[in-house]
Order: sequence, then structure tokens, then C-alpha cells
Amino acid sequence: MSERLKRDSLEYHALPVPGKISIELTKPAETMRHLAMAYSPGVAEPCSQIAHDPSLAYRYTGKGNSVAVISNGTAVLGLGNLGALASKPVMEGKALLFKRFADINAIDVLVDTQDVDTFVNTVRAISCTYGGINLEDIKAPECFEIERRLQACCDIPVFHDDQHGTAIVTAAGLVNALEVQEKSLEDVTVVCLGAGAAAVACMNLLLEMGADPSRMMMLDRQGVIHSKRDNLSEQKALFAVDTDKRTLDDAMKGADVLIGLSGPDLVSADMVRSMAPRPIIFACSNPNPEINRELALATRDDLIMATGRSDYPNQVNNVLGFPFIFRGALDVRASTINEAMKIATVKALAQLAREPVPESVLDAYSVVELEFGPYYILPKPMDPRLMPIIAPAVAKAAIESGVARAPLDEDYEEQLWGGVGFGADRNWR
Amino acid sequence: MSERLKRDSLEYHALPVPGKISIELTKPAETMRHLAMAYSPGVAEPCSQIAHDPSLAYRYTGKGNSVAVISNGTAVLGLGNLGALASKPVMEGKALLFKRFADINAIDVLVDTQDVDTFVNTVRAISCTYGGINLEDIKAPECFEIERRLQACCDIPVFHDDQHGTAIVTAAGLVNALEVQEKSLEDVTVVCLGAGAAAVACMNLLLEMGADPSRMMMLDRQGVIHSKRDNLSEQKALFAVDTDKRTLDDAMKGADVLIGLSGPDLVSADMVRSMAPRPIIFACSNPNPEINRELALATRDDLIMATGRSDYPNQVNNVLGFPFIFRGALDVRASTINEAMKIATVKALAQLAREPVPESVLDAYSVVELEFGPYYILPKPMDPRLMPIIAPAVAKAAIESGVARAPLDEDYEEQLWGGVGFGADRNWR
Repeated sequence: MSERLKRDSLEYHALPVPGKISIELTKPAETMRHLAMAYSPGVAEPCSQIAHDPSLAYRYTGKGNSVAVISNGTAVLGLGNLGALASKPVMEGKALLFKRFADINAIDVLVDTQDVDTFVNTVRAISCTYGGINLEDIKAPECFEIERRLQACCDIPVFHDDQHGTAIVTAAGLVNALEVQEKSLEDVTVVCLGAGAAAVACMNLLLEMGADPSRMMMLDRQGVIHSKRDNLSEQKALFAVDTDKRTLDDAMKGADVLIGLSGPDLVSADMVRSMAPRPIIFACSNPNPEINRELALATRDDLIMATGRSDYPNQVNNVLGFPFIFRGALDVRASTINEAMKIATVKALAQLAREPVPESVLDAYSVVELEFGPYYILPKPMDPRLMPIIAPAVAKAAIESGVARAPLDEDYEEQLWGGVGFGADRNWR
Repeated sequence: MSERLKRDSLEYHALPVPGKISIELTKPAETMRHLAMAYSPGVAEPCSQIAHDPSLAYRYTGKGNSVAVISNGTAVLGLGNLGALASKPVMEGKALLFKRFADINAIDVLVDTQDVDTFVNTVRAISCTYGGINLEDIKAPECFEIERRLQACCDIPVFHDDQHGTAIVTAAGLVNALEVQEKSLEDVTVVCLGAGAAAVACMNLLLEMGADPSRMMMLDRQGVIHSKRDNLSEQKALFAVDTDKRTLDDAMKGADVLIGLSGPDLVSADMVRSMAPRPIIFACSNPNPEINRELALATRDDLIMATGRSDYPNQVNNVLGFPFIFRGALDVRASTINEAMKIATVKALAQLAREPVPESVLDAYSVVELEFGPYYILPKPMDPRLMPIIAPAVAKAAIESGVARAPLDEDYEEQLWGGVGFGADRNWR
């Protein structure tokens, strides 16, 4: 990151007021009569009604449009275990993105513990406050157990975005890259460099979508995860394969796809050269990818490349997913975000990149054109079609898979097309 | 409560959007560069800085201007134990008041447990997220232990408003009522009808301020709390007095002051008649006071009466306290809200009611005049002087008593005079 961006970011966070989000009123509070409705004595009425029928919390409170962004700060960005308090700028940033992209009232909750039981008990105790829970920046392997246990005990969606958000957007990009390269997910060899939470979720989602487990290989710091290794964690063991390949060099030979979710500069030009014809590389380590993009594209011209960087084409960016997934889930009061909803997001995202791009997107990015192909396999974050396309796809998948608890308004999609988005009226202060 | 107010309050809560508060952005988020500062990769910089120096959370995040309004719903208004979820309208209402009156970003957190240990552990775990904690609607006696334990383990103010907010505003009103009646706190006989959390806090604060414990009598449902009673709770035992008086009838004879924090219509006209000359009655049971105001004033014309109702003069309303107490405490990063800060609030509130009222207040309440005396012993909630008068008094008391961790801006009071308040620019949506 440049010194200039560091400086600008600090100033952005500090001025004119500390932080990035505030609480505002959605109802008037200017007269004693307003206060009598908002608070005592009038507020007794919605309280009594909710006590009698808990579902009325969705009518009389903000629960149904709220998401808690929860972290213990054990895996903050690529910075490691900074602790709960130091993760606050990220969590407030996530809340900003929820609001900006999907008009969801998200609020950070920092849980100052590294103990799984304490974390789970704390979040369970406060979960009724919210319509959904977005877990963030929690280190593996604890994040797996935390998510599983919270999903079991909470009746609202619990979604670890570092895992599933990354997996969904990566899968959408991969679906389109395979289309451009005229390959199919069932037939390709996939190498996953990295075995953390995001990598595990990515490979799981690709398997759900039809990838061949015998053609999939995961690597951690010790190399290929194969069936003769011992001391593998429960998560990694699920991906152990029978193979003689041991190193990344070995794995890359003849591979169709590399998904990099590890660290900078681990992949060489020779490795890229050894891949199958028309290969695909997602080098998502940020800000420095697993292989420099210019180097990779100079090595061979039949390559499709995606990264996590906003200054290159084909950015794999979680903001393409989580705001709209939660929008759809909240709008049908889904009890969970299941595989059907994730796959619906993947398909809708992939399809959207194949549609002609509106002029407003070209203007927002100051580009002359964006056309489906090797340099445009994923929609751009500022694309105003994301919410009205993705959220209904998620909502419908929730209904069809039986986890929705409220019907959709008949004019739901119209409402979304008229909703927030680039250029929408915001309340800057 | 009238059927009309019930209906209007439900509509107020439900339309045009459910609830009363939303999250809004305080920084721009319209371009990819904005997002790079607000979120990845730029956000790494404030995170790293806070990891290195935790106090920078006050510069780069919203922590310093945030308060969690926390309840388990065990004593919701006068409705009893409705549970955590059903308390949400009250907690969101409190958040609305925090914002409206003191520009504090308050957010509700519902803790779904009736177990003291679970409650304390949950709140402790998330406390680093906030600049202060307002406990609300938690039943006695658990509320005493919860507050004490949280104060011991949190480095931010933990304030149970049902106790201390009520005590502070009541004490301010009493100071002025005594002034009008030409009596002094040290000499008067005080009867406290009710022995719950608010009553205990009120009597404790009056003792701190110089009331004579031997002239103070507390009554619970069994009558006078005297030293020969057994099975008294720890809190009540502190108020047991040596006396032959047993009933409210007995206690009221010759009393100077009655503080009612109990239930409707427990006090008779005969009891009022038996009080000392120039008596004072605070009948705070809401919406129906301990004695009907018209009846009490018809019984004797040397009486000063206050209630919890907004449609009578002399309303004892917590909103006169908590927004400004937290404003002052947050602005000097006080580690706690101590007795000195509470007493400073009492004195500032009492003094404010003795000052000439601005025209804007007369207009807001559509009254011709408000002059210090038997019918005006407390400021009105819509008085825009409350924040710039009370908050600096609290902040200075925090500094003088050694619990402040940041200095005040030199122009602090000026900033407050230019701040929020009646008629200020709000972001309605």
C-alpha cells in the first residue's frame, strides 16, 4: 500500500468525525407527542405486542433490516491476530459497505475473547437483537466450529464472509472464466494454493457445484495435502488425495485452474508455463498476488487472470456478494444462508457479467467498454444492477429450499430497482 | 394510555419503515478510491495503529461517541418480565433519545438471559466496542449485582439509568422544591414509597447529598422497612430504621417529602393532609401516579407536586439526565460515572430551572410563561440549554474527581451551544 493511501485512509477515518458510521433517526422526534410514541408511555404497546407474538419484532423494530458484523480480531485482513478492538475499523467498514450497497443497517460487535465457548455463548446471547450475523476476520480453525455452533443455535443467518463470500465470488468468476476458455467445471483440474478458511470454503462450494474431487488438489505450507500425510486438521483431511505429487511445481503441471488464497509471489513463470492449455489463475492474495499479473500474462497469452486488486481487471471482491446475499435473506426472513442460496448467488453473478453493461457503470469506472470475455468475467462493485439482480435470486432460492419465513412482496424487484446504489441520495453529515 | 396513543404508537413504529433508528455513513463511499480508504486495503492502517496504541480507537473509530443500550427485558417499563426481544422497542427508543438530545450514537443490545453470570460475561466480552454502557429495564435485585460487577471489569462508564437517571432527576427536582418551600435537605423527613432499584438509588443519592438517614423511611409492599424486620434483602437492609411506624399512614404523618416510586393510587387524601406544613410529593408511578394530582392539590394548597407525566407541570423525566451525563462522560473519556458527576448533574439541572426560560422553550410548549416556583421546578426536555449546561458540568466533575482520560477542548461549551437540539437539522428519511 502506498504511503499516500495510508495517510489518506487515516485522515478519512479521523475527520471530520471519528469513524465511518452513525446512528440516525428514521422517525420524527421533535415534539413531546413524538416522544410519547417513540418512548414512554406509547412504546409499551409494541413491547406488549411483541411479547405476545415475537414475529412482530419484524414489524415494530429494526431487527429485520439489521446485521451484526462480529469479530474477535484474530485474523484481521492479512495482518493477523490484532485483537478485537483493533479490528473495529474493518468491522465499521463492513457496516459501511452493507449500508452503501444494500441499505442494510449493520453494526459492529467486537467480542474480546479467543475462547470458542465464550465467543459462541456471547454471540448466542445477543443474537435475538439482529436479523442476521456476519462473522468476520476470525482465524481458522476456530472459525469453522464457531460458525457451525452458532448456526445450530441461532434462528437467523450466520455467515462467515471470509469463507463463503470469498467462495461465492470466486466461483462466479470461475464459472465465467471456464465459459470463456470453453472448459467445464466437471472436467478441469483445480489446484488450490492455500488451505485456510477461504480456501476450504471455495473448494467445498466448487464440489457442491459439480467439480470432480479426484481432480482437485489443495496445498498448505507443507505442500500438497495427500492421503499419506499425518497430523492433518479435520478440515484439511477432507481434501487429502491419493497422489505422488508433493510440491506446487508438481501440482501445477497440466492443471487447468489455480486458485490462490495464500500469499504473495509463490507462483513462478515456469509453473504457469507448465499448466494445461487455456489455463485460469485466480491470484487472490492482496495486495500482492501469488504471481505478478503482468508476468503471468507475459508468460502465456491463453491465460485468464483474476486478482483481489481493484486496479486490475477481474477483481474478486467480496462486496459483490455479502450485501445482496443478506438483502435477499433478510427480505424473506431466511433462517439460514444455505447452499442453494449460495449457488443461486454464483449463477446470478456469473450471468450478470454476461449482460451488456449500463453506461453508468462505464462512466463510474471511466472505461470505454466492458464486454464479457477474458478481461471482464465479474461485474463491477459499482454496478447498480447487483442488488436488484442478486437479492431476488437469493430470496427465491431461500423460498424454494424451504428456509424462508416470510413471502416476498409482489413488487419486490421493482422496489430494489428503485433502491440504493450508485448516485442514490445519501445522508452525508 | 388512550387507545388513540396505542394505535398511533404502533403506526409510528411500523411506518414507513419498521423501527426508529438506522445506520448511516458519515464518510463518502461513492468511488472505488473512497472504498479503498474505508475498507481494504486502506483500512489496514488504522487497524495497525490501534493495535499499537488502543487509545487511537477514539480517533479512528466511532467508539468514543457510542453507547450500548443493554437489557435482558426482565423489567420492561411497568410491564414486567417480557423477555429480551420484546424490550427492543424501548431500547431503540432510548437510542433515539440519545441521538436526538445529545448526538450520541447509541445502539440496542438485547441479552437473552436471566442468569447474572451469563449477562455479565456477555456484556464484558463486547464492552470494548463502545464508549459507554447504559443498562436498562433489568429487574432488581439482579440489576445491582450486574451493575457492580460490570463497573468493576469494564473501563468505560456502566450506568443503570432506571436507578441513577431517575435518582438524579428526582434529586434535582427535590432540591428546587425544597428551595421553594424554604426547607433544607438536612432537616426534612423523607418517605420513600417503593423499594425497587430506582427507590434505592434515589435514597442513596439523597444521603450522598446530605439527607439525614435518621429522618428517612423506605416502604415496600410489607410496609415500613424497620430494623426488626427479617428477610430483608441486602439493599433494603441498608435502609432499615429504628421506628414504631409500620404503615404508610404512620409514615406520612408529619413527613415533609414523599417520593413515590411504586404504583398507582397508594396514597390517600388523608395521608396528604397529615403531612408537615409545605409538603412535597413526587408521585412518579407512570402513567398513573401514587395519588391523583388534582386530588392532592385540592387537599392542600401549600403542596408542591411532581409526577412522571408529560401533561402535568413538574415532570420527572429521565431524558433530562442520561443524554447529557453520557455526553459529558464520553467527551472526557471518563472511566466511570461517579457520585461527583451525578451530583454535578443534580446541581446543574436544579440551577437551570432557576434561570429565565428562552422564548423557544415557551414556543415549543405553547405556554405564556415558565417561572421558577411550585409549578416549574425542573427544566423542560425540549430546552436546548440542557446539553451545553449539563454536559460541561459532568465533564468538569469527571476531571476534578480524577476519572477523566482526555482533556476538554477549550471551546467545548461553544461547540455544544452550536450542537444538536430542538430545531436542529436532522436526517429524516
